[in-house]
Amino acid sequence: MTLTTNVNVEAQAIEAKHASKKLMILSEEEKNQALNHLADVLEREYETILAANKRDLDNGREKGFTEAFMDRLSLSQERIADFAQGLRDVAKLEDPTGRVLTDWTLENDLQVEKVTVPLGVIGMIYEARPNVTVDATGLALKSGNAIVLKGGSSAINSNQAIVEVMHRGLEETKIPKETVQFIASTDRAATNELFTMKAHIDVLIPRGGGKLIQAVVENATVPVLETGVGNCHIYVDENADVEKAINILVNAKTDRPAVCNAAETLVVHKEWLNHHKEALTAALKENQIHVHGDDYIQGIIPGSQPAGQEDWANEYLSTDIAVKAVDDITDAITHIETYGTKHSEAIITEDAEAAEKFFALVDAAALYHNASTRFTDGGALGFGAEIGISTQKLHARGPMGLPALTTVKFLMKGNGQIR
Amino acid sequence: MTLTTNVNVEAQAIEAKHASKKLMILSEEEKNQALNHLADVLEREYETILAANKRDLDNGREKGFTEAFMDRLSLSQERIADFAQGLRDVAKLEDPTGRVLTDWTLENDLQVEKVTVPLGVIGMIYEARPNVTVDATGLALKSGNAIVLKGGSSAINSNQAIVEVMHRGLEETKIPKETVQFIASTDRAATNELFTMKAHIDVLIPRGGGKLIQAVVENATVPVLETGVGNCHIYVDENADVEKAINILVNAKTDRPAVCNAAETLVVHKEWLNHHKEALTAALKENQIHVHGDDYIQGIIPGSQPAGQEDWANEYLSTDIAVKAVDDITDAITHIETYGTKHSEAIITEDAEAAEKFFALVDAAALYHNASTRFTDGGALGFGAEIGISTQKLHARGPMGLPALTTVKFLMKGNGQIR
Repeated sequence: MTLTTNVNVEAQAIEAKHASKKLMILSEEEKNQALNHLADVLEREYETILAANKRDLDNGREKGFTEAFMDRLSLSQERIADFAQGLRDVAKLEDPTGRVLTDWTLENDLQVEKVTVPLGVIGMIYEARPNVTVDATGLALKSGNAIVLKGGSSAINSNQAIVEVMHRGLEETKIPKETVQFIASTDRAATNELFTMKAHIDVLIPRGGGKLIQAVVENATVPVLETGVGNCHIYVDENADVEKAINILVNAKTDRPAVCNAAETLVVHKEWLNHHKEALTAALKENQIHVHGDDYIQGIIPGSQPAGQEDWANEYLSTDIAVKAVDDITDAITHIETYGTKHSEAIITEDAEAAEKFFALVDAAALYHNASTRFTDGGALGFGAEIGISTQKLHARGPMGLPALTTVKFLMKGNGQIR
Repeated sequence: MTLTTNVNVEAQAIEAKHASKKLMILSEEEKNQALNHLADVLEREYETILAANKRDLDNGREKGFTEAFMDRLSLSQERIADFAQGLRDVAKLEDPTGRVLTDWTLENDLQVEKVTVPLGVIGMIYEARPNVTVDATGLALKSGNAIVLKGGSSAINSNQAIVEVMHRGLEETKIPKETVQFIASTDRAATNELFTMKAHIDVLIPRGGGKLIQAVVENATVPVLETGVGNCHIYVDENADVEKAINILVNAKTDRPAVCNAAETLVVHKEWLNHHKEALTAALKENQIHVHGDDYIQGIIPGSQPAGQEDWANEYLSTDIAVKAVDDITDAITHIETYGTKHSEAIITEDAEAAEKFFALVDAAALYHNASTRFTDGGALGFGAEIGISTQKLHARGPMGLPALTTVKFLMKGNGQIR
């Protein structure tokens, strides 16, 4: 079954904007109560959600989706309890709005305050995982924002059931249920409508694969918070410690290959390689890492496939890795600059000057010296919750917590001041 | 004479990107020395610039440009000395890069620093005034950014001469002259090429009229810092002090009608109006403010023209004003929400609760209680220099100083940490 309901995206966005005005004047206490109540309701009504999820799973099986995909789609009472716990955790975070960032008084006694406020309405465009429906709603409401949710068609029944349960829950709180809008359509045109709805939507956040993100960035006139594509490099410098280099490479590649902070390319100094080829080859073999190498690498690492242009740019999201040999750090930086996605890049070296150069010249959200790229993550860094990892430079860069969902107002209090 | 030189915009942008890598590692001292040297060179070579400016003025006269336009275009030795002083002032400002915003250490001893860094390459698209060529270059270089300048065709000879003088100056400094690129073309296609040059340009800043800004926002895939269109409102509430209301209205409307923080619409509570119509009418007349009013206003203010839809949305940039009568503050806020440009909005009232409501519900960069909207200005607020006034919500809102030209990097220093 696919939904073919006619939806009025603009009407929903307008409804969200109106509701956001009521949400933004609620107290932190009122927002937290609502989030905790939503958590309870999700746990209580888990069977409704599982019934809808079964319909998505049946559809998925019919369409022959992969096991990994079906696993991401699949819900259980336990997973729903995790969603609920996520909402309770967000309730405990500091309210990012209403914070006076700076205040001063002009010579004419005009008082100036720069205060954080909600953005207004967030448009969330995402793919398979139904957890985004709950996570994104929690983060939006906590930061005083309404949200328009447009999930992937493969999870539409699960997402709709989750939103219906949350709507019933919100009716028993101070937060208007219209702050959470779900676009119940599998039609791509509905997504495209969101792209240009500047009057009602303040920011679009795409979460998913590179193609989805690219489509949003290229077609949206609504400002976008770009997230997540990570073609991350580990550069092993001439003076890298062999144990650190191999441990970090294996961890960054194999700990969770499908995430955006996993390593996709090893850039390695030829001198280092010549000294440590046996150790590297053994580690790659032991960890079943499949190498796509340039000519030089193919002559050194047995069983490596030839790497082409597309390998340097590829986000494998598997235990495959592209390997490039370089003559020096300058070549390494040039390669990263050419193919990197400005997410996370690491240098392994005992040479402090080389690390300093790497930090200064490589343009990315997160740079590592002698550590795994896997730490580019809101949870690992102690941010408490994460909307995504920004690979853009404006507004927010790197792991984005609640403050990324706010903007500022200058509030000026006078007694008749003129210029 | 118009220039029809064939230009290679992409080659220039790539050159800027390369040069930016050399600029971003210079010390603050080296950047300041360069800016001060540029100031000296501009003053020394003012005659070259004036000769080019004469060609633009001759062209402008031929084309029958208005006096006001010709005045904005026209340079003099004194104006060039002002440009030079602007560069010296920017040299004195705090370097916005290299600042550690936060730092902490994870439990595994991984050290994390969040540091400000230059954006990279700024694309500046602007209209008549040649001063932007110098001002924007100074702000870009001080913040470690290269800049690609695309000025209006009416000032192309002046702009090119200014850049040639600055290039000669830069050759005697540590800053590569390739950090300042000038697109020497009057062809609109050259501007459009900048819109999608994501690989080489990190941000576009349009400065000029609403149409220019709209064209950039709608067509650019490069991130945009939107500046400047201000349809600012003065809302005179039921309990407004008559003297404050009239002083502020007259100041906001007439002090400098052509700037973006000038008032364009008066929204007035009917009760207040009925008590103070004589005082208001007299003040409008005395200050030669021309009223476009709704039906209610036309019945009260003699000589007012009828206001239509287009008046409510108009940025007159003259001593014309749209006037709307409302029954209460809710109507006022709805009107502002419908027609405002999220720049600067003021409420005049002695009622603290009304002011609080206005501050909470009106969505704009700057909100005023009992003061003129004219203070939304980097200079007036003490920011020292201003790239423009952002009317967008992401990255920077309100007057933008040097920090708006930076982004951040997370720098992680480890000793082999893995997850």
